[in-house]
Amino acid sequence: MPWFRTLIQRTTILTQYSKSQKSTPIFTPPSLTQLLHFSTQAAESGGSGGGALTVTAGLGRTKGDEKPRVVVLGSGWAGCRLMKGIDTKVYDVVCVSPRNHMVFTPLLASTCVGTLEFRSVAEPIGRIQPAISSEPGSYFFLADCHGVDFENHVVTCKSLPDGAGNLEPWDFNISYDKLVIAAGAEALTFGIKGVKEHAIFLREVHHAQEIRRKLLLNLMLSDVPGVSEEEKRRLLHCVVVGGGPTGVEFSGELSDFIMNDVRQRYSHVKDYIHVTLIEAKEILSSFDDGLRHYAVKQLVKSGVHLVRGVVKDVQPEKIVLSDGTDVPYGLLVWSTGVGPSGFVNNLDVPKSPGGRIGIDQYLRVPSVPDVFAVGDCSGFLETTGKDVLPALAQVAERQGKYLAELLNKLGHAGGGRANSANNMDLGKSFVYKHLGSMATVGRYKALVDIRESKSAKGVSLKGFVSWFIWRSAYLTRVLSWRNRFYVAINWLTTLVFGRDITRI
Amino acid sequence: MPWFRTLIQRTTILTQYSKSQKSTPIFTPPSLTQLLHFSTQAAESGGSGGGALTVTAGLGRTKGDEKPRVVVLGSGWAGCRLMKGIDTKVYDVVCVSPRNHMVFTPLLASTCVGTLEFRSVAEPIGRIQPAISSEPGSYFFLADCHGVDFENHVVTCKSLPDGAGNLEPWDFNISYDKLVIAAGAEALTFGIKGVKEHAIFLREVHHAQEIRRKLLLNLMLSDVPGVSEEEKRRLLHCVVVGGGPTGVEFSGELSDFIMNDVRQRYSHVKDYIHVTLIEAKEILSSFDDGLRHYAVKQLVKSGVHLVRGVVKDVQPEKIVLSDGTDVPYGLLVWSTGVGPSGFVNNLDVPKSPGGRIGIDQYLRVPSVPDVFAVGDCSGFLETTGKDVLPALAQVAERQGKYLAELLNKLGHAGGGRANSANNMDLGKSFVYKHLGSMATVGRYKALVDIRESKSAKGVSLKGFVSWFIWRSAYLTRVLSWRNRFYVAINWLTTLVFGRDITRI
Repeated sequence: MPWFRTLIQRTTILTQYSKSQKSTPIFTPPSLTQLLHFSTQAAESGGSGGGALTVTAGLGRTKGDEKPRVVVLGSGWAGCRLMKGIDTKVYDVVCVSPRNHMVFTPLLASTCVGTLEFRSVAEPIGRIQPAISSEPGSYFFLADCHGVDFENHVVTCKSLPDGAGNLEPWDFNISYDKLVIAAGAEALTFGIKGVKEHAIFLREVHHAQEIRRKLLLNLMLSDVPGVSEEEKRRLLHCVVVGGGPTGVEFSGELSDFIMNDVRQRYSHVKDYIHVTLIEAKEILSSFDDGLRHYAVKQLVKSGVHLVRGVVKDVQPEKIVLSDGTDVPYGLLVWSTGVGPSGFVNNLDVPKSPGGRIGIDQYLRVPSVPDVFAVGDCSGFLETTGKDVLPALAQVAERQGKYLAELLNKLGHAGGGRANSANNMDLGKSFVYKHLGSMATVGRYKALVDIRESKSAKGVSLKGFVSWFIWRSAYLTRVLSWRNRFYVAINWLTTLVFGRDITRI
Repeated sequence: MPWFRTLIQRTTILTQYSKSQKSTPIFTPPSLTQLLHFSTQAAESGGSGGGALTVTAGLGRTKGDEKPRVVVLGSGWAGCRLMKGIDTKVYDVVCVSPRNHMVFTPLLASTCVGTLEFRSVAEPIGRIQPAISSEPGSYFFLADCHGVDFENHVVTCKSLPDGAGNLEPWDFNISYDKLVIAAGAEALTFGIKGVKEHAIFLREVHHAQEIRRKLLLNLMLSDVPGVSEEEKRRLLHCVVVGGGPTGVEFSGELSDFIMNDVRQRYSHVKDYIHVTLIEAKEILSSFDDGLRHYAVKQLVKSGVHLVRGVVKDVQPEKIVLSDGTDVPYGLLVWSTGVGPSGFVNNLDVPKSPGGRIGIDQYLRVPSVPDVFAVGDCSGFLETTGKDVLPALAQVAERQGKYLAELLNKLGHAGGGRANSANNMDLGKSFVYKHLGSMATVGRYKALVDIRESKSAKGVSLKGFVSWFIWRSAYLTRVLSWRNRFYVAINWLTTLVFGRDITRI
């Protein structure tokens, strides 16, 4: 390594600077820990493709002196709750995900307008399960999984260099003793042209960042001399497609932002901005009728236009509805629910109704050993006689918790290794108890529907009381104390100073 | 406006949803306020180029019933301090800048590693001078200024649509009664190939964001199976070029981050990461010798490699020094000082030594009436017999303060209009008193040099005491209470929980 020698030489120059030079620990040879996860072949070659290697690199079968390895695909509610609960004295944990954090989705909408900060709703996996950054056999890999060899207990992944230097993505394999598929679902576009290109989803932190940047940009642009009246209205027309909880909560936050902040901070253009929520059927269809009407009343009151319509086409500056109406927009947010991802579609396993990975009452993928699926990517097989559960954080969280306990139980009973738990008693099966649904509609107003199902009778709350329940409920569910603290601080400063409008 | 009618129609659908529909204020016709800043011509045409117009739009000459207009180019230390101090009862203020906030540069380095949050060091202009968002005649325009017609008192600007919809940038004009050029300077690259493409500067918040994202990306990538030993070392080699305060402070923060956070949170790769600071001459050359040696000792102690060398070429994965040495890097930060920007070079006015806009002792640009220049873009003319002041926040801040008072004085004396103050008495000229320089070298260590000039004798502090002075000095200088509060909170949580490592 020529540059290595060079640096060593150059450090001698230090003497010109200072006598107190200590030999820095930086060039100590890599310990076994570092080498563990290179197959010999990987270690030999190298440098090719900027040091990236082809297929063969990865984590081989766990040996007798190592802990059994649980590989978790995904870092959403299900995967992270599972990693939090897993006993790292029994298992090594390897997480494969395109992001190094979990998004606290229920509060994501609040970050788009600055009510909360982005970091307050993002929890690094290393904080959820410290073992992945400290244990020799546990890892987090920034990568996509693009295939599973169920027979040989191996997953194939592709790294995500994201344009670091000249690095090209490279493949690597990970052998698993237990595999947990928690890869989540994909936003539905119903094959409508232009959605992916021009609309912004609201599922990741970078989506919220994009929305915030665009909203502030449009507010500023519309005030620049030379923008026509019509263009001004277009720039400041925020359109939300999809009347589910996410769409409604975002619309509520947006109208809050307009009424409390835009009116003072952008007084020149305040009369041009407006919000339109487009829904094909009914908004909040899963909620109790009384709550739904209350939500509608609140949204209308705060200036949100509710439009019943079906989107046919999305163009850069307008959407076209099925009845031919043009709706110009400056900001378009798309939240019409989720469906199976390409990864799930390509997996060769029996599927549940709706095309999710089919699981049994123990969250196992029955057709293959040692494989489990949790969260939005999974659904009960018809054979189980159970309905597919809704794609809710609540469901994913409960499944992750259950599976962590199940795996711990197996591990303690010596069933942690591949193919070693086939005839073990798994104890109680997974039963989901719905604790109720919540949605905020802005201005200290929220809906809480605590019925167990749409048909069931039960208490429903609305208004300030439920807003308070909603906020505190979420506050205590933010995972780390750090973020609980920051969420509280953010809410406080928003109350005292208003929302931050710096476009950074 | 067809879509306008459509929406009106569609809102009738609301009756399906709710009876309590109120007529929303959203479609009220634009008030005079909105129309004020379109020249008639601009108002007539429209829609062309997505509503953007050609040249003629803008703010015309101020009329007798309007306040005189101060146009401020830039939103850095000088411009923002000036806007903060200007009397908006006497003047309308129009700020033209490519960003809607001021960056609190002394703390920017701390945001790259998560010691502070990005928003804590960014102050929206509307918070510094509320008039620009509330007064009918005051504005902030997101735009670049690309020309000044001194004779007609007009600046020509180009909007920055930043790819909103299909908008193309458009030109507009602003007439001024007083013009304050506070456009700052540009990072120096000495014409070295590849710097702009591959290195990251450290002047704006988005630079800090890029550095943070890249650092975290490299930490994660280097842990992915298939990365060779050599590649790992390259990815985790952070190179800083330039041994001025910025480069030194960033190196210090970086080594803090490595020692306090990386070792726990990225323990698999902790032995591969290292920091190299490259400087052609001496680091912190403007500081007292004793302090400089102390800084060197501290940096070396915390594992920073100090390399004396001159960069000849910058390539995607390595830099080449003038002696032919290759230095591979994963992150390259460039801070070798600043020089005149293209805008300044193109201005047809006498220049100071070093090519800045030449000013007299009242910060006027003598050759043209009603024009002033402050901050890094300006320098005393040789004829004044004064030295050009260093490009420091301290200087810019003092000049902004002085000029605000000067303009207020003129305004109150009826000299606010164009060409109306030519023979007025301007009172005391601007005198700069250096309050000392400060630089932190990480780990609660800082240098404070409170000599008035390099040659002068004076007290110099170092170590924890000066670290404390440094921090509190800056803390109280963060402009708004909101950000003072957040900086304190950030420092607290960094102390308690460590730095945040989510890559969002």
